[in-house]
Amino acid sequence: MSADALPMVVPAPDLPARVRIHEVGPRDGLQNERASVPTEVKAEFIRRLADAGLTTIEATSFVHPAWVPQLADAEQLFPMVRDLPVDLPVLVPNARGLDRALSLGASRLAVFASATESFAKANLNRTVDEALAVFAPVVARAKEAGAHVRGYLSMCFGDPWEGAVSVHQVVRVCRALLDMGCDELSLGDTIGVATPGHVLELLSALNEQRVPTAALGVHFHDTYGQALANTLAALQHGVTTVDASAGGLGGCPYAKSATGNLATEDLVWMLRGLGIDTGVDLGRLTATSEWMADRLGRPSPSRTLRALSHKEQ
Amino acid sequence: MSADALPMVVPAPDLPARVRIHEVGPRDGLQNERASVPTEVKAEFIRRLADAGLTTIEATSFVHPAWVPQLADAEQLFPMVRDLPVDLPVLVPNARGLDRALSLGASRLAVFASATESFAKANLNRTVDEALAVFAPVVARAKEAGAHVRGYLSMCFGDPWEGAVSVHQVVRVCRALLDMGCDELSLGDTIGVATPGHVLELLSALNEQRVPTAALGVHFHDTYGQALANTLAALQHGVTTVDASAGGLGGCPYAKSATGNLATEDLVWMLRGLGIDTGVDLGRLTATSEWMADRLGRPSPSRTLRALSHKEQ
Repeated sequence: MSADALPMVVPAPDLPARVRIHEVGPRDGLQNERASVPTEVKAEFIRRLADAGLTTIEATSFVHPAWVPQLADAEQLFPMVRDLPVDLPVLVPNARGLDRALSLGASRLAVFASATESFAKANLNRTVDEALAVFAPVVARAKEAGAHVRGYLSMCFGDPWEGAVSVHQVVRVCRALLDMGCDELSLGDTIGVATPGHVLELLSALNEQRVPTAALGVHFHDTYGQALANTLAALQHGVTTVDASAGGLGGCPYAKSATGNLATEDLVWMLRGLGIDTGVDLGRLTATSEWMADRLGRPSPSRTLRALSHKEQ
Repeated sequence: MSADALPMVVPAPDLPARVRIHEVGPRDGLQNERASVPTEVKAEFIRRLADAGLTTIEATSFVHPAWVPQLADAEQLFPMVRDLPVDLPVLVPNARGLDRALSLGASRLAVFASATESFAKANLNRTVDEALAVFAPVVARAKEAGAHVRGYLSMCFGDPWEGAVSVHQVVRVCRALLDMGCDELSLGDTIGVATPGHVLELLSALNEQRVPTAALGVHFHDTYGQALANTLAALQHGVTTVDASAGGLGGCPYAKSATGNLATEDLVWMLRGLGIDTGVDLGRLTATSEWMADRLGRPSPSRTLRALSHKEQ
């Protein structure tokens, strides 16, 4: 038996048979890169991720170019990848972004809300309720257009200004997003402070307010090394949608200590060991992340990627 | 509420109320450092760890100085710390090491076995059974002397040469170590490949062979980012002894991809969030690891340590 047999596949009780990875690398991962990444490189990144077996790849954001210069090429990028046989959600911050996305044929859209007033103010320059009021007609029109809508909710487990965030507050905003028509939510631990009991408490509180687990995705950051333990807790609760970023790309510009998304490679290693189907080819994925790391000129923070790269040397 | 309220304390069901962290930084963490660390620095490291609330601190190894030059000062170091009000286990590889340790008053000893033939050969230059035959009289004499004996078992979840390791093989060596008198075992994922189902399978298999969970500690490496998820699974099974290394110090010289022990800080963050008592003061611990990182001249790989250091800037 060779080392290629690793990780050993040993299922654990009461876990889902299949997990859908919502790959956020091209959007969330790249959006804060200072040096402009060529549009063709972004398109190739998405193509390679699709080729590695990822079926949901968040492609870009139709945000105002002045807000996120790195994604100012959304109009050029999206048509280059839209015929790939995968789901390609795009972020839309407002009615203008929605128009741009729909005009290019986007059929999966996402809006980005905050669970806390401080982050809503910092990121959107609005109160939480003002931001929801902006999103409501956007989501309504997206649904009329037949699109699938994901609602991101950031700072669900802690906030750099406010500290702890009450589960009650998170549930209230989740309920509002679903009531306006969002098909699924992504519960974001934007500063990476969550621990497994907190994850379970929020999921249970949402269930109690008639939010089905099937409508919930989790989006953990590895700032304090907790992302995969929190993911395990979420899987044990029945969550089957997990956000991750190839190579661990990305962070949060408004939260300095938010040093990165859960790396897709680290997630796939755990899921593969647990016998949970993701459809992802780990070798192709790591090759893609290494290729992207070369383009960006710095190594990936993914531990699995580093370990596998090291083995090949 | 300030950010100091993080992580929020939210217990999860069916976890232990208290966990004993077996701190391995001074021995396992430092043993592969190339540059010699002054004995006084090691003693100060141990004192600071004790002051941070760690109650079990593996201090050094009474191995032949030629094997591990970094720990050649065990005779000088141990008397400098032995009066601290904490448990200070020391590693003893053979009868000679046992004599040296006992003569200095060590009352907690550890032996280091391998679950695989390849690693036994590489690390000990013996077969698994030959190594066990060497340990048997060492453990017997240690017990006669009234000492507590821990048995380390490495490569429990995978081996760099052999790949997957059968649970049956691991259970056999565990049983042998307990039968010769070991009080507790430390199940080592030396190359960091384990996933949570594999952890649960091994723990259950040991229980079936009359090994009580109370006699089991877990020793995970974060090579593939899995250490904390595996720890959560072990806690859910009832394990209450977890090995970790302050600042994530350490690796394994015979397994190049073994890039590090679980960082004590990352572990404490999770346990604190779960409301599990460890007695550790996270602020003092991170200050200690930063102090040690300065002595070694390179940053710690602990994500929690990095995040907290960043916040202070």
